Formats: sequence, structure tokens, C-alpha cells
Amino acid sequence: MRMYDIILKKRSNLPLTDEELRFLISGYVNGDIPDYQVSALLMTIVFNGMNARELGTLTMAMAQSGRMVDLSNIDGITVDKHSTGGVGDKTTLIIGPLVAACGGKVAKMSGRGLGHTGGTIDKMESIPNLQVSLDQEAFMNQVNRIGLAVIGQSEGLAPADKKLYALRDVTGTVDSIPLIASSVMSKKLASGAQAILLDVKVGSGAFMKTIDDARALAKAMVDIGTENGRSVKAVLTDMDRPLGHAIGNALEIREVINTLKGHGPEDLTHECLIMAAHMLVLSQICDYETALSRVQQALNSGAALERLRMMIDAQGGDSRVLDDESLLAIGKFTYDVTAPQDGYITHMNTEQCGIASVMLGAGRTVKDDPIDYSAGIVMHKKTDDAVRAGESIATLYASHESLLVNAAKTYLEAITFGKIAPVVVDTILDMVE
Amino acid sequence: MRMYDIILKKRSNLPLTDEELRFLISGYVNGDIPDYQVSALLMTIVFNGMNARELGTLTMAMAQSGRMVDLSNIDGITVDKHSTGGVGDKTTLIIGPLVAACGGKVAKMSGRGLGHTGGTIDKMESIPNLQVSLDQEAFMNQVNRIGLAVIGQSEGLAPADKKLYALRDVTGTVDSIPLIASSVMSKKLASGAQAILLDVKVGSGAFMKTIDDARALAKAMVDIGTENGRSVKAVLTDMDRPLGHAIGNALEIREVINTLKGHGPEDLTHECLIMAAHMLVLSQICDYETALSRVQQALNSGAALERLRMMIDAQGGDSRVLDDESLLAIGKFTYDVTAPQDGYITHMNTEQCGIASVMLGAGRTVKDDPIDYSAGIVMHKKTDDAVRAGESIATLYASHESLLVNAAKTYLEAITFGKIAPVVVDTILDMVE
Repeated sequence: MRMYDIILKKRSNLPLTDEELRFLISGYVNGDIPDYQVSALLMTIVFNGMNARELGTLTMAMAQSGRMVDLSNIDGITVDKHSTGGVGDKTTLIIGPLVAACGGKVAKMSGRGLGHTGGTIDKMESIPNLQVSLDQEAFMNQVNRIGLAVIGQSEGLAPADKKLYALRDVTGTVDSIPLIASSVMSKKLASGAQAILLDVKVGSGAFMKTIDDARALAKAMVDIGTENGRSVKAVLTDMDRPLGHAIGNALEIREVINTLKGHGPEDLTHECLIMAAHMLVLSQICDYETALSRVQQALNSGAALERLRMMIDAQGGDSRVLDDESLLAIGKFTYDVTAPQDGYITHMNTEQCGIASVMLGAGRTVKDDPIDYSAGIVMHKKTDDAVRAGESIATLYASHESLLVNAAKTYLEAITFGKIAPVVVDTILDMVE
Repeated sequence: MRMYDIILKKRSNLPLTDEELRFLISGYVNGDIPDYQVSALLMTIVFNGMNARELGTLTMAMAQSGRMVDLSNIDGITVDKHSTGGVGDKTTLIIGPLVAACGGKVAKMSGRGLGHTGGTIDKMESIPNLQVSLDQEAFMNQVNRIGLAVIGQSEGLAPADKKLYALRDVTGTVDSIPLIASSVMSKKLASGAQAILLDVKVGSGAFMKTIDDARALAKAMVDIGTENGRSVKAVLTDMDRPLGHAIGNALEIREVINTLKGHGPEDLTHECLIMAAHMLVLSQICDYETALSRVQQALNSGAALERLRMMIDAQGGDSRVLDDESLLAIGKFTYDVTAPQDGYITHMNTEQCGIASVMLGAGRTVKDDPIDYSAGIVMHKKTDDAVRAGESIATLYASHESLLVNAAKTYLEAITFGKIAPVVVDTILDMVE
């Protein structure tokens, strides 16, 4: 078998065999196949795509290039959730407790934030003393005991993806639906969960800017899971405005707690209940209607909030934050961004809202940048809201006063005002299964 | 300027600027741009193509990556000819003398054979003592004095092409019309001729199997020349059967001499007269009708044969071969391939005829293989000819008897026999200018 022939075959738009795809991944990881051949093949995939079988095989080969996490000691069906990344997306820390409170087994490995998008692990670390690293046995024991553990994703998962991603990053092949799908799913397959709910974000704050692209990505990822015997569904959710009111780590943890107490923003609460219900269905616990009523009940009764408390305790964190939010850091300096005119907010450039938050210190521009957990933005008005000239539409928080003015300017530029209220869509746009 | 952005731009099917193309070539040659980025870009060109301006700029940048031959000391317009490679193609050694005899200035650098196609330089070397390497001054002096010099192409021409070709060869990007065109023309531009006649072969013995591909390649090469101020025309010629009767180096020199004596095969003679006439037109010596009658006259009068003699003398060869063909080597062992049935030859797989010749020792399977100048094939019957069962259709020549049987088998397999005479096309299929 020769890599040269594999390139020519894909260039001619013929599907690659399982053997060819495994040869590609093992040869690339062990250094037998050079970068220049792989980059040529990646570009043929950009143009010609891949069918479900090819993607399924490719992705499993990428997963199997490293350690495959074995979660079989967890009782019941393990369920994971993955978001393609958004601004103000703190759903994992609300949905996880909701699902656990209803009997699901949420064994989740999460990532850190980069660029305009935040990461669950960073948000968790704004809770004093919380540990995000557990060994395999402690992780499984915690899931068995309380139904929920969220830890940082091991660096060693899917090394083929790491090597391929580094190559894609310098060869103009990042932005390709089959390659994005295989990258995401290789880590999900390696993480071991039997059921996976994918949250594919769409809009100005998401990697996928259009619903068609998001649907294609969702379908590719669901196909990869199905080809490999996992239960996978995808929800397409709106990221044309930030989710909830808070952007920034400790500010988002405040919002998580408020939401689990029943006082959360309507868009965030709605989205979390629906996704949690789908995770119960994927876990084969009940049908969707029953699931929706159970998660609503878990929210109303405070059972979900108690699961969050149990997880924080189990992972060594200070769970008193649930009762005393002053234990969470908050920026010493604040600045109110005001509306320049009467009317409505008609659009938010969500990516730019995220960038304003990074400018305040809440995120990273490059990997391993330090994060200021206390920084961020609380939005008082979002798309569709009426505003009056001079009214505060958002409060910015930072540890250094000097950061506020530029971030405020960037945030204000992200907001479009108009005279007529826009049509706002449901945050849940579509399902792919 | 970043290579990454250039890849993304071409991937989006936007034309690259002159600056971007020059940056690409200079960066690749000096090692600043890595193979894996260039192979990704090459694959985008396979899919998205290049317009005439892009190709013109790219090709001149490739030419200028090395020495640009300066032929300005030659009086008059220098004219070159290039064939995309065929089987039995000895036209250069007939056309060059024809053009020189009519006042043209033929300054030609030729290549060696590889695979099923032969090379003019190998054929010339079958003439005892002929030198195919001249320094620049001797080369120009000879062209000024006798109107004709044919030497081996300098290794140092267009080093960017050499590096790009090596990469294309391992990344599935050889077979792309813009990349083939720029590769051929980079060496032609560097070789310095002001006018160039391109002979694009079409059919079972050519790299271009269809007339549409050949036309597209011809157009791309003509455009590259025009963009860079050279006068370029292309003729599309038939390579669906070998050209003339002889395949193999010394055997082809015999045929060259016979043709210049007026006894050549009709197809070969016809094609050479037409191409020579076009070269006179490109040299601005006269119009096409006048040119045709002049080259016919140069053939009939023996003036062209005398030019060949002058060139052989000037390059140190033994020109007595023109009068005594026994001075040319000929294979000691022969084998007659016979027709298995009465009827007609309806098709010849010309590439396979070339391979049979290589099996006899007349060609190379890898670069730097030794060549047996005495080996080859003389075809007595070609496509459209009537045959009788048992009649010899070709005589094979070799220095080792053991080579004959397998080559004969391969040759016979290349020939299709039938009951009905096929339609044979003119060897000149089309013109592109």
C-alpha cells in the first residue's frame, strides 16, 4: 500500500477503504508518511469530502492512535456532552447536575477556552480549590456514586488528531466539515462514553456561521458515532447572541448557581432543560416527554443544585459558593456600557462580545495564557431588548482599570441598535440524529 | 505575506497576485516555505486551476529561479521546438535542418528519454562521436553560422521546477494541466528562444489521451508564452500510433536520414514539413503558404540534408553516416513479429509499443539507465494497413537474443487486428495559437 496511490484515489473522488485509512493514520503517527503527503491528502478531502463509512473508520483510527478510556466499570450507560464552542456557554455545569439528578451517568471530559470562546474547565477552576484532574478510578467511582464528574481532557487522547490538527493549522485545511467532525469525534470516541449529545452552535459567535454548515457538521459527527456503535444526537443551538447574561469564568459560575436555583435567564434555562432531556433519552432512562418533566422537576426541587454541590465537594472545591457568591472572585473595577440611542438591540456580533471579554482578562489569545477568573461581562440587554439612550446595557468587570475603556469600545461596536424590534428565534434551532 | 493566506485564497478559487506567486517560488526555492504547505497549494491548483496571468507569472518566476540563457548574440529570431513526448518521434532532427535550410535560427535544448518515450539527445548520441554538450558561446556561434544547434538541456535550468516536480511526483499532483504547462514552459522560458513551436501529442502513446486535454494543455502553454512576450504556437499531433516506421535510437537516425533524402514515411514527412513551416512563420521569415513551399524545396533539393551534415560536423560527429548507414549500430539479433490473421491493424497501443522497445534495450525505465543505441523496432505495418496471416508486421532488433521473445509478445499484445479498415486521421489534429 502506498500513500501516493491513496492521494490519487481520493483526488479522483473514490472512497478509501478501511485498510487505507488505518494505513494513513498509523503511518502518519509513526513518522513513515511525511507531512507533505498528508497535507496533499487533506486538501483532496477539503474538495471531495468523505462518506460516513470513511469518516467513521478514519475517526476510530485517530482515536485508537492513543489510549482508549475504558468506562465499563461505570454502572449504566455513560453519557457525554460536547459543545462546538460559544460565548457565555456554561451549559455543561447546569445540564450535568440535571441529568445526574434524574439518574443519568455523566462522565465528562472538558476543555479550556481559547480565543473568543470559553471553556468549562476554566469556569470550574474559578471555584476555590476545585480539582479538575482525577485518576481513572476516582473518576469512575465518582460517577457511580453521584452520577456526575467533569474533569479536564487528558492530553494523551487521540495523538493522531493532535498531529493532524497542527498540520491543518498551517496548510489551510482547518475549515473543512469532515476534518472538523473527525477531530472532535476522535477525542469523544477515545473518552469512552457510550452516548454523546453534541451541541452544535450556529451564528456570529460560532465556528459555523450558517445553519446549513452546522447541519452538515452535525450529520457528519452523528454518522461517525453511529458507524462506531455509539448513540449520538446533535442539537443545533443559536449562538447569534451570547447565551445567558454572563461572560467570564466566575461570573458564569454565579449564573450557573442562579439558574439551578430557578432564577436563570430564560434562554439559558430553556436550552439546558431540553439538552438534559435528550441526554436522559440517549441514556435509555425514559422517553423524551417523561425526560422533560423529570428534568424540570429536578430543577424546581433543587435536586440538580444538590448534585452540583456533591460534585464540587467530591472534587475538593468550596461548595459554600452555592450559598455565598461573595466567595467567588469579581473584578474590582467596573464600567457600564450605555445605549447611544432609544430603540432596540437588533444584532450582537457574538464573537466580538467574546473578544471584549478576553480583553478584560477573562480569556486567552494563545494557549497557556493566564486567566483572570474575576473578569468578564454581565449583559443587561441582549438582541430584541428595548433600550433607552444612556441606559446601561452591560457592566464590565476587570482587575485593572486600564483594561475597561478599550473593552467597552469593542463591546459597543459589537452591538447594532435600530428602531424596530428584530425577530428572535428559539435558541434550539434543529436536531440531527 | 504568509503562505497560509495564499493557500486559503487559492482554496477559495481567487486568483493569486504576481507578488504572491513570486513569494511562493522564491520562498520554496530558498527553503523558507516547507514542502507540506506547497503540496497543499499544489492540490488546490489541481482542483481550482489558474488563469493565464497567474500561470504566466508563476512560470516566469520558476524560470528566473535559475540561470536565464541569453541568446541575444544570435542574429535574427531564435526559434525552439518542444514535443510533449511520443514513441518514434524523431521530428526535431528533420525539422531543425529544414528550418535552418530556409534561414531560420534553431537553438534547441533537448531532453533524454524516460519510460516509453524516447529523447532526441539519446538518438543523436547514436551517431558516432557526436557531442551534445556545447558551451554557451560555441552554441550561439554554431547557430549563427549554420542556423542549427541541438544540445542537451542544462541541469541548472529552472531549479524551482526541479524541486516542485519532485514534490508533485510524491503527492499525486503530476497530472494537472496548469502544473504540466508551467513545468514545460519554465524550462523553455529559461532556454532563451524568442519563438517556440509546441508539439502536443495526443493518443494512446501520449501523456494527453484525449484531444480536449491536449487542447487545454496547448492553450495553457501558449498563454504562458504570450504573457511573457514570446511567440508561441502549438500543433496537436496524433500519437495514437507510433510516428514513422522506426522506434529506437540508431534505427530512428536511419529514418531521419532517409526522410531528409525524400524516402521517409508519409506520416512523418508530412508532419515535419508542416511543423517546419510554422517555425518559419514564428521566425517572421515569411507567411505560411510561402513557408510550406520553401521547406518542401529544402527537402527536395537536399539542402536540409546538408544542414544535418553541417550540424553533425560542427558537433564533432561522424557525418559519413549520411552516406553509409552501416556506420550506425544495429542489433545483432532480430525477430519478426507476424500477423496472426488476415485483415487490418485497427489500433496500436502506442505506449505499449514504446515499452516493447524499452524491453529490447532502446530506452530507460529509470533515469541514468544505460541505453543500447542499436536496439529497437522497425514497423512494416501500422494502423490502417492490410495484413495477411503469417506476414511480418515488425522486425525487432536487440544485442541479446534472450530479450526478443518477451518484447515480441508485448509488441503483439499492443496491436489490435480486425476485419474492417479503421478510419485514420491526419497526423496534424489541430493548432492552438
